[in-house]
Amino acid sequence: MLGSSIGERFGFTSFGESHGRCIGAVIDGCPAGLELEEKDIQKMLDLRKPGQSLVSTQRKEGDVVEILSGVFRGYTTGAPIAMIIWNQDQHSKDYEQLIRKPRPGHSDYPAWAKYKGFNDFRGGGRFSGRLTATFVMAGAIARKLLSQTLGIETYSYTSQIGKIKMKGQVTPKMKKDIYSNEVRCPDKKTAQQMRTAILAAKKNGDSLGGIIESITSNIPVGLGEPIFGSLESDLSKALYSIPAVKGVEFGSGFYGSTTSGYVNNDQYMIKNGKIVTNTNNAGGILGGLSNAMPIVLRVAFKPASSIAKKQNTIDIKTKKPTSLVVTGRHDPCVVPRAPPVVDSLVSVVLADHAIKCGLIPPVLR
Amino acid sequence: MLGSSIGERFGFTSFGESHGRCIGAVIDGCPAGLELEEKDIQKMLDLRKPGQSLVSTQRKEGDVVEILSGVFRGYTTGAPIAMIIWNQDQHSKDYEQLIRKPRPGHSDYPAWAKYKGFNDFRGGGRFSGRLTATFVMAGAIARKLLSQTLGIETYSYTSQIGKIKMKGQVTPKMKKDIYSNEVRCPDKKTAQQMRTAILAAKKNGDSLGGIIESITSNIPVGLGEPIFGSLESDLSKALYSIPAVKGVEFGSGFYGSTTSGYVNNDQYMIKNGKIVTNTNNAGGILGGLSNAMPIVLRVAFKPASSIAKKQNTIDIKTKKPTSLVVTGRHDPCVVPRAPPVVDSLVSVVLADHAIKCGLIPPVLR
Amino acid sequence: MLGSSIGERFGFTSFGESHGRCIGAVIDGCPAGLELEEKDIQKMLDLRKPGQSLVSTQRKEGDVVEILSGVFRGYTTGAPIAMIIWNQDQHSKDYEQLIRKPRPGHSDYPAWAKYKGFNDFRGGGRFSGRLTATFVMAGAIARKLLSQTLGIETYSYTSQIGKIKMKGQVTPKMKKDIYSNEVRCPDKKTAQQMRTAILAAKKNGDSLGGIIESITSNIPVGLGEPIFGSLESDLSKALYSIPAVKGVEFGSGFYGSTTSGYVNNDQYMIKNGKIVTNTNNAGGILGGLSNAMPIVLRVAFKPASSIAKKQNTIDIKTKKPTSLVVTGRHDPCVVPRAPPVVDSLVSVVLADHAIKCGLIPPVLR
Amino acid sequence: MLGSSIGERFGFTSFGESHGRCIGAVIDGCPAGLELEEKDIQKMLDLRKPGQSLVSTQRKEGDVVEILSGVFRGYTTGAPIAMIIWNQDQHSKDYEQLIRKPRPGHSDYPAWAKYKGFNDFRGGGRFSGRLTATFVMAGAIARKLLSQTLGIETYSYTSQIGKIKMKGQVTPKMKKDIYSNEVRCPDKKTAQQMRTAILAAKKNGDSLGGIIESITSNIPVGLGEPIFGSLESDLSKALYSIPAVKGVEFGSGFYGSTTSGYVNNDQYMIKNGKIVTNTNNAGGILGGLSNAMPIVLRVAFKPASSIAKKQNTIDIKTKKPTSLVVTGRHDPCVVPRAPPVVDSLVSVVLADHAIKCGLIPPVLR
Repeated sequence: MLGSSIGERFGFTSFGESHGRCIGAVIDGCPAGLELEEKDIQKMLDLRKPGQSLVSTQRKEGDVVEILSGVFRGYTTGAPIAMIIWNQDQHSKDYEQLIRKPRPGHSDYPAWAKYKGFNDFRGGGRFSGRLTATFVMAGAIARKLLSQTLGIETYSYTSQIGKIKMKGQVTPKMKKDIYSNEVRCPDKKTAQQMRTAILAAKKNGDSLGGIIESITSNIPVGLGEPIFGSLESDLSKALYSIPAVKGVEFGSGFYGSTTSGYVNNDQYMIKNGKIVTNTNNAGGILGGLSNAMPIVLRVAFKPASSIAKKQNTIDIKTKKPTSLVVTGRHDPCVVPRAPPVVDSLVSVVLADHAIKCGLIPPVLR
Repeated sequence: MLGSSIGERFGFTSFGESHGRCIGAVIDGCPAGLELEEKDIQKMLDLRKPGQSLVSTQRKEGDVVEILSGVFRGYTTGAPIAMIIWNQDQHSKDYEQLIRKPRPGHSDYPAWAKYKGFNDFRGGGRFSGRLTATFVMAGAIARKLLSQTLGIETYSYTSQIGKIKMKGQVTPKMKKDIYSNEVRCPDKKTAQQMRTAILAAKKNGDSLGGIIESITSNIPVGLGEPIFGSLESDLSKALYSIPAVKGVEFGSGFYGSTTSGYVNNDQYMIKNGKIVTNTNNAGGILGGLSNAMPIVLRVAFKPASSIAKKQNTIDIKTKKPTSLVVTGRHDPCVVPRAPPVVDSLVSVVLADHAIKCGLIPPVLR
Repeated sequence: MLGSSIGERFGFTSFGESHGRCIGAVIDGCPAGLELEEKDIQKMLDLRKPGQSLVSTQRKEGDVVEILSGVFRGYTTGAPIAMIIWNQDQHSKDYEQLIRKPRPGHSDYPAWAKYKGFNDFRGGGRFSGRLTATFVMAGAIARKLLSQTLGIETYSYTSQIGKIKMKGQVTPKMKKDIYSNEVRCPDKKTAQQMRTAILAAKKNGDSLGGIIESITSNIPVGLGEPIFGSLESDLSKALYSIPAVKGVEFGSGFYGSTTSGYVNNDQYMIKNGKIVTNTNNAGGILGGLSNAMPIVLRVAFKPASSIAKKQNTIDIKTKKPTSLVVTGRHDPCVVPRAPPVVDSLVSVVLADHAIKCGLIPPVLR
Repeated sequence: MLGSSIGERFGFTSFGESHGRCIGAVIDGCPAGLELEEKDIQKMLDLRKPGQSLVSTQRKEGDVVEILSGVFRGYTTGAPIAMIIWNQDQHSKDYEQLIRKPRPGHSDYPAWAKYKGFNDFRGGGRFSGRLTATFVMAGAIARKLLSQTLGIETYSYTSQIGKIKMKGQVTPKMKKDIYSNEVRCPDKKTAQQMRTAILAAKKNGDSLGGIIESITSNIPVGLGEPIFGSLESDLSKALYSIPAVKGVEFGSGFYGSTTSGYVNNDQYMIKNGKIVTNTNNAGGILGGLSNAMPIVLRVAFKPASSIAKKQNTIDIKTKKPTSLVVTGRHDPCVVPRAPPVVDSLVSVVLADHAIKCGLIPPVLR
């Protein structure tokens, strides 16, 4: 499989560039018979789109998705579903200086070296966070498929911005509050602090990172495969395709590695006639397989690399030191836009595994 | 690709079970003309084998690798390289009780549910840490290939056991000290503390987790692909195939997400005529591509789940609560055996990418 | 890899339906730095488009290709190249009766059964010969890449229509005459007879099959891999994706199986300092690898299944026998439109192998 | 997927060389719960093994298969099934002269060029017909799986040797006679003529080719996928991995291309309450999908290239013309050993598609 594709039975190929004509997605392997219209996808896309608030970039994009194939009379057909968003409102001139002066923390330098200058560098081109909109196109379909066939539900939220950390874990009840504020943190007070921190960074010409936590419930037992097909393997592969992601952990994760087996092991018990565990330090995954507890994971985003402060860089033609102030419109913090992206990739991976396990048939109904 | 395989041009398939006849690996896509003998693999295998010390399991295995195909007159031929280790010294009876009482923190329950009891449960079967020996078989070849063709060198070491953390990062100079002690931490003093902590946990019938840090130097710029073929995607997918791994981060990782862009960005400079960065918070990867700085990653291992303490579990036939004391020989901490495993998977992934990028030809010489 | 994709390093995904909004192709893995504009693709597309002559369908389509991504300032960027043709001039009503009465020889019945009626049946939907236009989009790029980097040239022509067979093999000199007539047979006299035969079949409400022969020259030695990656394996897999293809043979093929080893073996000799064979019964492939002689293959097309004669079929709802006269515009013989399609798939497969063998670098120049 | 592997959900990797230590197969994706013992595989292997008769090579090999993994207490576990046959009775010296003098019609020359002499050339190494024994290892499992779950049955037989052609098609009744004679042709009289022809060729230091016909019944409707996942695509890819195969056709194949649509179309009718066709010129496949009629295909084998007659070749070191008489033990005709090989590959491909279509669950029972 080439680098723009993921998934074996629910396969997704992403194409397009930040400032090219369009961005798009092709899904192959989606079962036939799923009711689907553009609205299903648009709804989820709207949750990540730029220009929504003070805390994210001012670039305004309609981001209207069009389904090009694979849907007939309101249902998926089993054929590839191609989707597209036409780009608009690009300010390509902002990026012209970047050809020679790679931005610290961005893909500019290795991309230029890899493609010997042939890559479309405008707005980061293929490496832009804008491509995560294609993840949402695929994810909206995967999510609907999982929800309708197996009742699986994923929700992700901002659990940390810079040093401001939400306490406790979000309960299903709090889900509805995630999108009630700009930073996507269901705890109002914390959300307010996060917003303040982002605006302070912005004012300072700087940016902040943060953490998204994602919880998926109603998972059947036994999804995933031992060794390289482990759920953790496939989820992390997908999540690391989000630009700016630098860490992925499951359950108790890095913290768990500081504890002892007796503390970290989740002991089994029966609850409402079901086998469950008393804690969920495994994040719902044991031996690479789901154990029917919620899948809990955390994704660390580095602070956005495009900042207004002056930074040292080099001129790639003269190989001389120089400096750079990144202009253009950039998110001071990309984290608030990430929850639907994380939801999407989790859904794409789980849909793939559910089909591989025979839990979703090739034709619904 | 099925769950037992990884890699597109340097492909690796793992087979075997902990207490079956053997474990093995098939490598397809290794360039022809690489000098290779069993000794090359054995050397690296010996670094992870059990029974080496007080701090790891007492199970003694010869673990002698045999090359079955793909090598002719001392060189690889371009054909698949099959390798095998015959199992010995299994104490399968130790595991009989586990059929009905799944061990907390282990794959027993989801594996039983997934395979409806047909899986070879002895010693964890397919889910056993023993399978990481097959990773080393593949890794030893990948590592030699990378070293001989591109000068790439990977070294991994124990940077944390439980709450005991090594300070600072290991320098190339310290590499030689990694295997000078049982816990694989190149800092002697910290190593001694780690050893003490493991033995204390062992005495207590408990276990400890920890962190492996891995550094790869002499990386050419531009390895990896945007989106799903990012180096982080492929490295984390491979690393999460190690049983007990629950976290993977690159560069400043989770910590980096608490900082600001100005702090976390690595600014460019010229050093010895080369483009380098003043810091390496990116861990050598930007936009999913190598930037020629060392690749730095950390892998979090949960504490080993097989412990001698009494734990709650359920009887999967009666669905009634019961309890369990895991007997048999188990590592109180698997981390000290992990450095060659991490080295191996990093090497397998980088070899695959180096071939895909055209940096290693199909025939050497 | 899912059914709509082919190729490992030069990967091609086809999407769209005959009477949907569009048909399209996504190429991933095309090296950066290839000069490319829509004209390069359009030229080849024009050679297969319908409505060109008396002998093919009267459906007139502009078939104007648009490049959506992956090309920047006139050169490929290394990112996925998405291309699209908007559909027009569909007469979907012609097909309404077919929902219940599957056409003999067409995909209608198994497609209906497989997708339980959710498939877009209009014009054959996903199974339509129209999708071969997406093969040409990919093929035009592959062909240009092979020609510019390795000098590889593929040409295909009609060697048989019904019982009328061209004598002898086409020489490189005759290449220019292939497209000089409607049936794509470079021998004028035979071409005339073929045309007459097709028009006679058409008048009779019937259709004809035929054979395309394809010759590829300037092939380097050693393309392909033993066993499942053999050139014959990958070429035939691609060619059998053309609707109506029912036979593929290489070199002396089926005829060769009636001869003896001494007759069929191609003996080696030196010509102009090069190792060549005196004959080419192997069709340029030995052990699945190219031997540097021209790759020669033949593709058998069944007669088009959509005919105006009354045929027996069944009503899939009542499961009662009934009869059917296929109306609408259909090719009495699809073979004359197939040469660019065969050229395209041969090129796509060879480009993939040339990249895998390291003969084409990731960036040109 | 690399060249030694095939299949996406029922995956098969082949390893080993003709005169190496062993040959082997790894199956990944076989459902758990299939009763399996070595005898199941041995039985089918015995039908292709050399040294059985006057008409095939005198090399005698025990060819005893051993299952190394993936089977526990008599049932498959869902883990990879590794199998092995240790090589014996190699006469490697016979091949020493071949290093410099490539045999006409064999892989020697392109293999030497591709691998720059690193390939194991003994007995053809990786390119040897001996590797088809690994196909049978995989095929025996696939066949049992298909038979037990879906009642699918495949049988293949010799329908032509040189110019001697069996008349008519084999009926299910005649199946039992296929292995009643050395040439695997169920028509006794034709079998006798074939035998005579092979012995005459052998006496003459020459060899013969031929055709295997394969019929698979009890196929469910809708197996396969449009475009590149067509049954014809995947079957032909697999069949062309058999050394010496130079043609593959389905149903009326090449002959069908000389007829008209009205003659070649299979018209629908109802028989015993089922939708069937009056003829089967489609060979059971329409639009790449099974239509529930028997899958009928023919595979053309070129005459064996290793012959005792003097042939022209070149010295690859001096690039001077020379001549060659191939010594050693070789089949004068490989066709009689091919029916179980064709059965095997057909079964492997169908098992893969049946799993992908959800017709065989991940665990039986």
